[in-house]
Amino acid sequence: MRLTITMRATFMYGAGEVRVIDSPDPSLREPTDALVRVTRTCICGSDLHPYHSMPASEAGAAMGHEFIGVVEEIGDEVSTVRVGDFVIAPFAISCGVCEFCRAGLQTSCVIGGFWGNPKFGTAGGQAQAVRVPLADGTLVPVPGVGPDTDEGLLASLLTLSDVYGTGWHAAVCGGVTAGSTVVVIGDGAVGLLAVLSARQLGAEQIVLMGRHPQRTELGREFGATDVVAERGEAGIAKVRELTGGGSLAVLEAVGHMPAYEQAFGVVRPGGVISRVGVPQYEAAPVGFGSLFRHNITLTGGPAPVRAYIERLLPGVLDGTVNPGRVFDRTLPIDEAAAGYAEMDDRSALKVMLRP
Amino acid sequence: MRLTITMRATFMYGAGEVRVIDSPDPSLREPTDALVRVTRTCICGSDLHPYHSMPASEAGAAMGHEFIGVVEEIGDEVSTVRVGDFVIAPFAISCGVCEFCRAGLQTSCVIGGFWGNPKFGTAGGQAQAVRVPLADGTLVPVPGVGPDTDEGLLASLLTLSDVYGTGWHAAVCGGVTAGSTVVVIGDGAVGLLAVLSARQLGAEQIVLMGRHPQRTELGREFGATDVVAERGEAGIAKVRELTGGGSLAVLEAVGHMPAYEQAFGVVRPGGVISRVGVPQYEAAPVGFGSLFRHNITLTGGPAPVRAYIERLLPGVLDGTVNPGRVFDRTLPIDEAAAGYAEMDDRSALKVMLRP
Repeated sequence: MRLTITMRATFMYGAGEVRVIDSPDPSLREPTDALVRVTRTCICGSDLHPYHSMPASEAGAAMGHEFIGVVEEIGDEVSTVRVGDFVIAPFAISCGVCEFCRAGLQTSCVIGGFWGNPKFGTAGGQAQAVRVPLADGTLVPVPGVGPDTDEGLLASLLTLSDVYGTGWHAAVCGGVTAGSTVVVIGDGAVGLLAVLSARQLGAEQIVLMGRHPQRTELGREFGATDVVAERGEAGIAKVRELTGGGSLAVLEAVGHMPAYEQAFGVVRPGGVISRVGVPQYEAAPVGFGSLFRHNITLTGGPAPVRAYIERLLPGVLDGTVNPGRVFDRTLPIDEAAAGYAEMDDRSALKVMLRP
Repeated sequence: MRLTITMRATFMYGAGEVRVIDSPDPSLREPTDALVRVTRTCICGSDLHPYHSMPASEAGAAMGHEFIGVVEEIGDEVSTVRVGDFVIAPFAISCGVCEFCRAGLQTSCVIGGFWGNPKFGTAGGQAQAVRVPLADGTLVPVPGVGPDTDEGLLASLLTLSDVYGTGWHAAVCGGVTAGSTVVVIGDGAVGLLAVLSARQLGAEQIVLMGRHPQRTELGREFGATDVVAERGEAGIAKVRELTGGGSLAVLEAVGHMPAYEQAFGVVRPGGVISRVGVPQYEAAPVGFGSLFRHNITLTGGPAPVRAYIERLLPGVLDGTVNPGRVFDRTLPIDEAAAGYAEMDDRSALKVMLRP
């Protein structure tokens, strides 16, 4: 009889129903797999969407798509990652060789997909260990770093799994360049890191729309020059005044309809609305009265963070930037449910989990 | 007693109700005005929208926003246009000096606007003469051309008022470059000139979606490599097959919802939908299931044709391109109503009017 070794992993069983359970320790299944022992993982703003709306499920859904850790085992065909490597796992699984991966759009990989996609049969990243499919295309080794690395650096490395690359994607798609004026809608982790990214890209005026003073204060430290707490028409009027008639770059890091409406309220003719918050709507105004009349471009989508790690890693490693400051709470993985609740009631900005 | 000299001008009084009437000959009103004696004008696909839906009106609406002609008189402050100049009038009135005009987005000029906007108090371009506001910023003189110029060249010059520049805008906003694959949706004049523009920009594969054989045949002569007559799911499937999974550049030159749906059905992940057909809808799918999932960009709007004339004029003058071939019918202005009816029932592609 073979002993089944178990680990702790986070599952959601319906709206508001998160449990950390014993789950079989993962093992290699495909020759392109790697096993990663998780060093740090975290809860994403997008995890709150099912937390609000998931229908009850007995089987539950494995949670988590952001983690860093150490490679414990690799399949026969894995060649770019070795046992013992410290790695960042982007939130999308990607092959690294298809047309889209080569173009830097790994989130549209033809055989990859998102964590939790049943086709991969993996658990999620909010666990002690993860089987990583397509390890060569997915994982990014970070030499010189290990589980004992400074806690602040681990936090910043973890943001390269998702939120920092997502904020960067917003800024890049929004066409932010040196001297730009930028409006960032949303003071969640992605919005704040969109501010940081815009600053890194040389933006001069960065207006952050958000109403949580602790968060917007961090936004100022990341580079926001103005903060607008008002929403709706009042918020739009204030931003238009601050920017002399709107901004050519508007980064929408929320995903709800009011944020979209704010975006086209503050964008300047000829400008760009760059969305990285997962839209919680399907239809939206795009006609003559909203986007078309003034040649407004709508762009963005799931960030190919894999494509940005090489660009962003040096600044993280040398401490030029500290995106990990978005983590304001760290909990042991067994308390993941409390972490969800704290992010949901906004008492925590972003919760890191220690396996 | 002063004699009132009259001219003939086209008005619409409700859906399907077009009349050419005697109207006072225009005169200068502002020092920035010019008077233009119209040489050729035409009916636009967008004129068919009110032709279908305009509520009955006793005063009527002055029609027309595309014309070429000769400057007869200028106001004291006009400096770039002289009496006797042969000019192209873009479909938007623009000052030429504001932020947006300088950026090449004359359709968003802060004091300009579209023909027919009551603030200008002008009649439309489907008339024998027009008072042109903001003449310096709006009109483009064409040296060496006059009303007696070859009919084919006049037709091509007239397309620079709108449809050629609009097709060009679609291609430029769609990111068409040398070697591109492009899908053009719509075989109206703008769609066909989007094909011509894509070809000029070096596109290698140009798939034209349209179902009027005479029009798509002209599309082939303009550079289309493939024609897809099917619509809906069948059309999408065929285009995806022809392009090996969709096109990075999709130029939408219709403005109706089925065309929009075709656009996101045939766009490739990471691609661009460039719209120049005036949207006849306000809300449209833009969420995870349509644009967001694969980082599709939605762009376009009213073309700043003024910005493109300098680039496009030489090819027209030297005969490299013949965009005027989209005119398949010429009528005296008094028969404008027949012209509308022929465009509406698709027996004419685009109708030129001779004042």
